[in-house]
Amino acid sequence: MPHLEEQELSWTDLDKKAVDTVRVLAADAVEKVGNGHPGTAMSLAPAAYLLFQKLMRHDPKNPDWIGRDRFVLSPGHTSLTLYIQLFLSGYGLELKDLEALRTWGSLTPGHPEYKHTAGVEITTGPLGQGLASAVGFAYSQRRQRGLFDADAPAGESPFDHTIWVIASDGDLQEGVTSEASSLAGHQELGNLVVIYDENHISIEDDTDVAFTEDVLKRYEAYGWHTQRVDWTKTGDYVEDVQELYSALLAAKAETNKPSIISLRTIIGYPAPKKQNTGKIHGSALGAEEVAALKTVLGFDPAKSFDVDEEVLAHARKVLDRGAESRAAWQSSFEAWQSANPESAALLERVEAKKLPAEIDAALPVFEAGKDVSTRAASGKVLNAIGPVLPELWGGSADLAESNNTTIEGSPSFIPTSRSTDAWKGNPYGRVLHFGIREHAAASIVNGISLHGRTRAFSGTFLIFSDYQRPAIRLGALMGVPSLYVWTHDSIGLGEDGPTHQPVEQLASLRAIPGLDVVRPGDANEVAAAWKVMLENHENPAGIVLTRQNIPTYARGEGAATGDTFASTAGVAKGGYVLAEASKDGETVDAQVILIGTGSEVQLAVQAREALQAEGIAARVVSMPCVEWFNKQDEAYRESVLPATVKARVSVEAGLALGWREFVGDAGRSISLEHFGASADYKRLFNEFGITAEAVAAAAKDSLADSNA
Amino acid sequence: MPHLEEQELSWTDLDKKAVDTVRVLAADAVEKVGNGHPGTAMSLAPAAYLLFQKLMRHDPKNPDWIGRDRFVLSPGHTSLTLYIQLFLSGYGLELKDLEALRTWGSLTPGHPEYKHTAGVEITTGPLGQGLASAVGFAYSQRRQRGLFDADAPAGESPFDHTIWVIASDGDLQEGVTSEASSLAGHQELGNLVVIYDENHISIEDDTDVAFTEDVLKRYEAYGWHTQRVDWTKTGDYVEDVQELYSALLAAKAETNKPSIISLRTIIGYPAPKKQNTGKIHGSALGAEEVAALKTVLGFDPAKSFDVDEEVLAHARKVLDRGAESRAAWQSSFEAWQSANPESAALLERVEAKKLPAEIDAALPVFEAGKDVSTRAASGKVLNAIGPVLPELWGGSADLAESNNTTIEGSPSFIPTSRSTDAWKGNPYGRVLHFGIREHAAASIVNGISLHGRTRAFSGTFLIFSDYQRPAIRLGALMGVPSLYVWTHDSIGLGEDGPTHQPVEQLASLRAIPGLDVVRPGDANEVAAAWKVMLENHENPAGIVLTRQNIPTYARGEGAATGDTFASTAGVAKGGYVLAEASKDGETVDAQVILIGTGSEVQLAVQAREALQAEGIAARVVSMPCVEWFNKQDEAYRESVLPATVKARVSVEAGLALGWREFVGDAGRSISLEHFGASADYKRLFNEFGITAEAVAAAAKDSLADSNA
Repeated sequence: MPHLEEQELSWTDLDKKAVDTVRVLAADAVEKVGNGHPGTAMSLAPAAYLLFQKLMRHDPKNPDWIGRDRFVLSPGHTSLTLYIQLFLSGYGLELKDLEALRTWGSLTPGHPEYKHTAGVEITTGPLGQGLASAVGFAYSQRRQRGLFDADAPAGESPFDHTIWVIASDGDLQEGVTSEASSLAGHQELGNLVVIYDENHISIEDDTDVAFTEDVLKRYEAYGWHTQRVDWTKTGDYVEDVQELYSALLAAKAETNKPSIISLRTIIGYPAPKKQNTGKIHGSALGAEEVAALKTVLGFDPAKSFDVDEEVLAHARKVLDRGAESRAAWQSSFEAWQSANPESAALLERVEAKKLPAEIDAALPVFEAGKDVSTRAASGKVLNAIGPVLPELWGGSADLAESNNTTIEGSPSFIPTSRSTDAWKGNPYGRVLHFGIREHAAASIVNGISLHGRTRAFSGTFLIFSDYQRPAIRLGALMGVPSLYVWTHDSIGLGEDGPTHQPVEQLASLRAIPGLDVVRPGDANEVAAAWKVMLENHENPAGIVLTRQNIPTYARGEGAATGDTFASTAGVAKGGYVLAEASKDGETVDAQVILIGTGSEVQLAVQAREALQAEGIAARVVSMPCVEWFNKQDEAYRESVLPATVKARVSVEAGLALGWREFVGDAGRSISLEHFGASADYKRLFNEFGITAEAVAAAAKDSLADSNA
Repeated sequence: MPHLEEQELSWTDLDKKAVDTVRVLAADAVEKVGNGHPGTAMSLAPAAYLLFQKLMRHDPKNPDWIGRDRFVLSPGHTSLTLYIQLFLSGYGLELKDLEALRTWGSLTPGHPEYKHTAGVEITTGPLGQGLASAVGFAYSQRRQRGLFDADAPAGESPFDHTIWVIASDGDLQEGVTSEASSLAGHQELGNLVVIYDENHISIEDDTDVAFTEDVLKRYEAYGWHTQRVDWTKTGDYVEDVQELYSALLAAKAETNKPSIISLRTIIGYPAPKKQNTGKIHGSALGAEEVAALKTVLGFDPAKSFDVDEEVLAHARKVLDRGAESRAAWQSSFEAWQSANPESAALLERVEAKKLPAEIDAALPVFEAGKDVSTRAASGKVLNAIGPVLPELWGGSADLAESNNTTIEGSPSFIPTSRSTDAWKGNPYGRVLHFGIREHAAASIVNGISLHGRTRAFSGTFLIFSDYQRPAIRLGALMGVPSLYVWTHDSIGLGEDGPTHQPVEQLASLRAIPGLDVVRPGDANEVAAAWKVMLENHENPAGIVLTRQNIPTYARGEGAATGDTFASTAGVAKGGYVLAEASKDGETVDAQVILIGTGSEVQLAVQAREALQAEGIAARVVSMPCVEWFNKQDEAYRESVLPATVKARVSVEAGLALGWREFVGDAGRSISLEHFGASADYKRLFNEFGITAEAVAAAAKDSLADSNA
């Protein structure tokens, strides 16, 4: 691809007026709804306009064009910074949408929302997530280039593009930003350019009260390319657009390091009274100040949402340039397709979100009767499907061997110079190493998932999902298919003790709307669960795995019957009858239903035997994913949990929270309602009463209750 | 206090042998239990011994001595680093305890546990938390010095002491460390000394695969004093203890900045085969390597847990030095008491964990009939009790005005030079500014709470409790009374939309064992709730507050009766009858119970009226704190929620999760089971069906069910 940019910026009066129009629209939009964040949208107007009009490769009519540059607005509260550029560029937003800012059903909600407004690449708002996920976008660009077009000279592949980010003082303070930025430097992500809007104002006013570190020095320490553009340096405020443009070009030209440009702005400029205050960050300016702003800028203070046709026509010329740019790209893309039919077929498959036909044959079948931890089973699954699923990649936050997340024989995704004795890698590698940075791992995987086409997973202990929670939630809210591997899923981790033993994590992860929490009950459920997770592209999922060995069940070919256990077909339905209530080997009506997940399914299975030995007919339901089960139709759910059977017991080595919905008033839950302890795991299960005996006793209690 | 340390270190053969004994004990202890983390305990032996024997002011017989230095072991997995020093120093641990490492009921669990083992200042394990909370210890030391002895010359107050920290490669990667370290530099915490054990090995082996930033440069950027001690610099590994000692003295002498010393060690030194590997981080060495280690160090490979009596006697001399040191301190403390009777009385009161008698009179009473947001009420409470409760301090993560967390008229806790137009402060100030660092805010407040005597709170939006979760959990696990102010507690925050609207947070916070989640139903409940929270010192609590105005109820003096609402006395019980079922103004048996929290109590109140107008007797229960309610005896709980009344409705603008326990099979929950949206909050409550009409309709459904 030829570079489109000239070193000398073309910046006409129309450009200047367009930028001022942005400021006025920002003030008008917030004024109309009465609340919102006008300040940054005003002062960042030149920077955002520069990106959308002069630097980014994009085609507003084709916001999903694979060859586009990506833009991430990390401070989502200044959504107008993005919305107004989308309006000016012709992405589909019109004045009426700006007028509907922050109102029910509008295309312009308070924070930009992915899948809701064309041109929004990521939902942002919780500070730090945008920049951290932008690092994931940059990972993804490099991985895809390696996957599809590794041999093209630098800058000449249709898969080459730049990730542009605007970040704020707030973003720079968040820990997740530090984690991701350290990784970005480590990874030498030359495709990442960040404008840090150093306006020195946050909600508590002058950031000096809490934020006085030397940000650029910190980024140098991470290995970034740093530049400073200070529009206050003359003593006056001079928006030297050429200076910023040159810095952005230099940043883009630096392809061996990520770049950050500290852009010193004055928030709310040029609002005469409220610029440079905490107030203008998050409140409407008030009619008087809006009028004063318009006067300063030569706009008619009596008019609102008033956009000069000539200005709009000028700005919308980006549509022509975008179309041209895409057409040029299209030829290079088609040339690539012809030259690389296999890669092109792979791209076509992943764009269609289809798994390869070979996946079923590749999935391992685990031998019944052999005890195996579900984490080990998961590792075997990943390694078995790795060869047929090149789009799958991932790794751990420094727990690779514990999480069983390594696709063996694949290089690590690192600069070649970062190879160690244990790990050899290259920039196009497949195995991710997040270091001890669980939160960034999750945000980066969100970024990879948003960028699309590949599927990425991060691994850590289940307990550390707490560190990832803001990113997990955002992935669920966006509906992106990020994947989590969470091992050491209960007190079953043993001696490391209560700081490392999840108790409330299963319940609190299930509480996140749109997250699938998958806790397979044996090795073969693991294989089935992975397939379901990979087939889904609409929301995130985490697979929750044991450290300790658990039984692998002997199963029949279909539904459970008599004493024959069900196949794993029911895993996709979230919950299924693993073992029927039976008498003399024949299926009978259940008197009691025992519901288990993960390692506790074995306790339900043992309790069933004990109960049936006493003449109590007991069905075992394995419930690997409550979310999938709740999506089944009423008839299926009733077939698994018949309303007439009120005697029910759930067993899970965690809180009972949530299980009352399944066991009802007469039911019982064998659970853990307090923190764990440091000891051998078998001892812990016994001391804490999570045993088959407890399940059987609870079943009898529940039977008594339900008959009362 | 005179400085006890000499510049030239006394380091005898007995010291050297003691250090080698530490290594051998570490290897033995892990070998015996078969799992654990020997490597760092071996290579950090000289550093830890230096701190406990030559630098720290402590008295092992009095581990709660207020004048002691504090030691924080941030990488809790190397608990042996601490346990063996506690054994050698005479804190009460003996060889049998080391032999019982990581077993049920021992004093030596996998990770050090606060309140469990004398000498353990903080539970650590989840990486980053130790160092981040150590920053809180340092805040607390400075605040207490200001509170009790502001005028003493530097180094001469009985409240002067040093916070010593050991941190690991893992700690340095975690985002919470970055946040807290930036604040520590900003705050110029000269009382904080960190040894960063740069051993360059983590679980995935050589850290070069994921961690190549320039750590000391990053700390310089934060404003820290940095030093490097490289024991590998000669090409051989030479443990130059004098060099480290001198660096530690220099770090302590630097009282205007926090200090970090990068100590380059070789993990597992001097194990002949396994030193400098990922394996020695977290696995037993194996019998052969343990024997080889002993041989290298001149120990008998046939013996385990073998400690030379002379070595132990030598190390335990720290008891005499500690007693001397404490005696010297005691005189200066008594002199301070005599000279400062008021401060001494304050110290005595806070040490006794008593609130001042004046608190009841100080607590505001809010006028009935006036709508007020509970966040505004909380701000009024804090400001009303601030003058009588000098031990109370806190602030926000950049949302002071939104969280209403500022005790007005108090200076900010910052170096004077960090004052801004909006905030004036000094090092002994009261108002905290965390910046946009919610996680560090929580970890720092944990550190303050552990350090004791003062009560600190941090504020942010409820949604961002997700960022704080690892620290919240750790506070709950430790049983420390950290306080959280979480405002904007539902879709009631309105236009900022789904990224900022809590949905699952109430349920998922209630899921943390030992955390009190307090959601008052009106302004007067806020006042009552604050008092309960301040009276408790055993576990953390968060108060969850509305952005929007809600009614302030007219209340009677006692229990609810007829149409007279109850006083707020029931708040302390977690749930109480706010309004009785009534007919013609007389109390009648309830047909249905409506349970609400926070802003949704008003919906229950309105629904009661509507239902009673139709002849359905409805009781309203306000449930500000489920945890407090669950602690009440059965009789009280039955009096509020009689078992015979099966028609029940809960109403809360969040997940129903957890409410089934209270409403039962026949009950209904008016709830929000999906993410929110960006619009005016009244619109949202209506669109999402969280209304009084919905509560009334659900009550009828439930009645029908319960009569069926």
